[in-house]
Amino acid sequence: MSDDPSTNDALGTLRAAIKQAVTDVRGQTPLAQSFTNFVTINLVANAQLAAGGTAAMSYLPDDVIATAEIAGSNYINVGTLLPFFKNALPEIARKLHENGKTWVLDPVAAGIGETRTAILESFRDVPPTIVRGNASEIIALDAMWGLADADSTTPATRPAGVEAVDEVDAAVDAAKRLARHLAKRSPVGAGAVAVSGAVDLVTDGERTFRLPGGSAMMTKITGAGCSLGGVTATYLAVAEPLVAALAASLLYDRASEIAEVKSDGPGSFQVALLDALWNVTADQVAASDIIETN
Amino acid sequence: MSDDPSTNDALGTLRAAIKQAVTDVRGQTPLAQSFTNFVTINLVANAQLAAGGTAAMSYLPDDVIATAEIAGSNYINVGTLLPFFKNALPEIARKLHENGKTWVLDPVAAGIGETRTAILESFRDVPPTIVRGNASEIIALDAMWGLADADSTTPATRPAGVEAVDEVDAAVDAAKRLARHLAKRSPVGAGAVAVSGAVDLVTDGERTFRLPGGSAMMTKITGAGCSLGGVTATYLAVAEPLVAALAASLLYDRASEIAEVKSDGPGSFQVALLDALWNVTADQVAASDIIETN
Amino acid sequence: MSDDPSTNDALGTLRAAIKQAVTDVRGQTPLAQSFTNFVTINLVANAQLAAGGTAAMSYLPDDVIATAEIAGSNYINVGTLLPFFKNALPEIARKLHENGKTWVLDPVAAGIGETRTAILESFRDVPPTIVRGNASEIIALDAMWGLADADSTTPATRPAGVEAVDEVDAAVDAAKRLARHLAKRSPVGAGAVAVSGAVDLVTDGERTFRLPGGSAMMTKITGAGCSLGGVTATYLAVAEPLVAALAASLLYDRASEIAEVKSDGPGSFQVALLDALWNVTADQVAASDIIETN
Repeated sequence: MSDDPSTNDALGTLRAAIKQAVTDVRGQTPLAQSFTNFVTINLVANAQLAAGGTAAMSYLPDDVIATAEIAGSNYINVGTLLPFFKNALPEIARKLHENGKTWVLDPVAAGIGETRTAILESFRDVPPTIVRGNASEIIALDAMWGLADADSTTPATRPAGVEAVDEVDAAVDAAKRLARHLAKRSPVGAGAVAVSGAVDLVTDGERTFRLPGGSAMMTKITGAGCSLGGVTATYLAVAEPLVAALAASLLYDRASEIAEVKSDGPGSFQVALLDALWNVTADQVAASDIIETN
Repeated sequence: MSDDPSTNDALGTLRAAIKQAVTDVRGQTPLAQSFTNFVTINLVANAQLAAGGTAAMSYLPDDVIATAEIAGSNYINVGTLLPFFKNALPEIARKLHENGKTWVLDPVAAGIGETRTAILESFRDVPPTIVRGNASEIIALDAMWGLADADSTTPATRPAGVEAVDEVDAAVDAAKRLARHLAKRSPVGAGAVAVSGAVDLVTDGERTFRLPGGSAMMTKITGAGCSLGGVTATYLAVAEPLVAALAASLLYDRASEIAEVKSDGPGSFQVALLDALWNVTADQVAASDIIETN
Repeated sequence: MSDDPSTNDALGTLRAAIKQAVTDVRGQTPLAQSFTNFVTINLVANAQLAAGGTAAMSYLPDDVIATAEIAGSNYINVGTLLPFFKNALPEIARKLHENGKTWVLDPVAAGIGETRTAILESFRDVPPTIVRGNASEIIALDAMWGLADADSTTPATRPAGVEAVDEVDAAVDAAKRLARHLAKRSPVGAGAVAVSGAVDLVTDGERTFRLPGGSAMMTKITGAGCSLGGVTATYLAVAEPLVAALAASLLYDRASEIAEVKSDGPGSFQVALLDALWNVTADQVAASDIIETN
């Protein structure tokens, strides 16, 4: 643990909240609902179950809104769009907002395709509680929502499909601006942004944390990021946004390290990852390296 | 084997039929077609293959009806609805009925959302041959189809997403009524209902059986129930409804017990479950505890 | 290695190109985009990643065309059709052709359903660069496109769902005709057809190769063929069509042999297959038995 002594007290409080979130999910098995892409929908559900929650997946607005009434939180992922998503997703986001429901957005491939752009723009004024993405997606969403100052130095970058072409460091300013924007309209009075990369970054717009570790094998299976988004929604059902984003990212970092050691390639890595999400202890997650930075 | 001696002869006949069904699927590799949800569609197909059958998945009515001509049975699962399902599924059910085709229904999340309710109501008069669900779904479907007597004491219960909130015992009357309703309109002159839970229950409306055993890990992977529904359709291609429902549930109970011992969490459990579906012998399935009750 | 000495020089060149393709995919991690069925979409993506590439899946024409601009190749698989595919897929094929993009077609279940037939017919004049299918699908596509001479002796055979009812040998003439048709309209001046079966067959219309080996367990998991199609697109991003088709089929044959030895059933076989796709060396792939025939 490489904590700066001056932040130890604040980190101690945060560690206790993270430990509580991991424990509460396992004790309460909260339902998080997902509207997610067809590639990784199975892994999202299985990861939510392995973390201790329960899962329900829906696409029709009437299904999503009815299920949101009994769910602790929700998750929307904009990969693999179908035509009806163009109207359904703005309607769903608006109703979740009107009903005061929390949700996590994974802006997969933000910047690619007119329909995806129209959908993501529609979320601007009825936004999610947490955004989780790679650096390129976070930068693209910030640009799309016009959150940067006129003199911002964060350059817009053309995305490369679903893979990040930017480093996490390049997305720090965009992530903070996004988090502050989410917080202003949040039904729980706070928001958070998680940027996945070699060193993950989590911010609520005021405080920013870097989370070293994890496994490079996460980029060799499909859905590592999507399922992290789903598990973030699971934690959001029991914890405030910053704690939920930190707990989910740390759970994934610790689980992926264990899975890398136990596996011989990407097939056995995914199996071992689900096992490790189930077996990692709340203490292991809470004892992780957490580096508070500017 | 905890058989009541008075039922030993009848159970002996049933055990022989169950053993024959398991053997016939492996010998004949029958095709069962599925119209199923996007979360667990892969596991449904892999479970049908692991049980010894073959799989084909379709959504367009012209695809489904053309494939039903060469399939031994069919499976419909109403999770993850898309807009066009509202017209497609009633049309498919009607045509399967007109063409005398057998099919298994998994009424996932019955009671949630207007579209799902409209679809399930449309199945009432052109019903499946077998219904497989959790207790809450069986109770909801029975209520939706208005099968209860006016003085029925089975209460309607609000569903909790895709998870059952009711115990299997609470669904006994609903399951029997449903099975009798299915039998009346069945192309093979019989129907069955399987209720999944800690102790599974299977009934054809006249005889009712409880199947102890299985593994609690089945609730920690997504698609245990869906894929059991798919495998039930595989068995329905070679056996009568009661035998198909019993054989599939017993195969799953035995396979899940083996998988629990061999696994370290939900990831390795799912892998071991598919292996066990492949490796469990027909004798092991047929020798299971089967408790005939009222 | 059972090479005919008279073809050793030509095969030597081919082996070098195959080895280079396997190496280049791992060094360049090319993006191959897929429009594929919902059953096996996860395995397609994971197989492309395990082979060393990256994956993006899209359905909306604007998504597909935008992603094709940054992808090295593309893959279209016509399983699990939705209504909007009837217009979207012809439009996508036409635009890929106009933009000079290479793509691989998997004509799953060719011959079943009016919508699938209309879609496959629309590809005739704006065809893929490579077709990969089982013998029944190759024969059906050849017949559908009217490529046979009037006196052709290759009989059209009714497909049996997604399973081949014909042997690879029965599809040799159809495969050669298809490959010549693809080559004529190819953006890279060449095409190839791969027929999967007990002994795979690959042809560019001029030269034809048989690839013995592989594992019968490939028919006991869903998506073995679909994911081979996706990995063929990954190789097509770095190699010419004949080399891409050979390299992908040989990688799969070697990986499936390793996976069969390491597994206890279809669950562990799929896990071991992904691990082996990751671990098989370029030398192992290039040293495979390759039998040039007429």
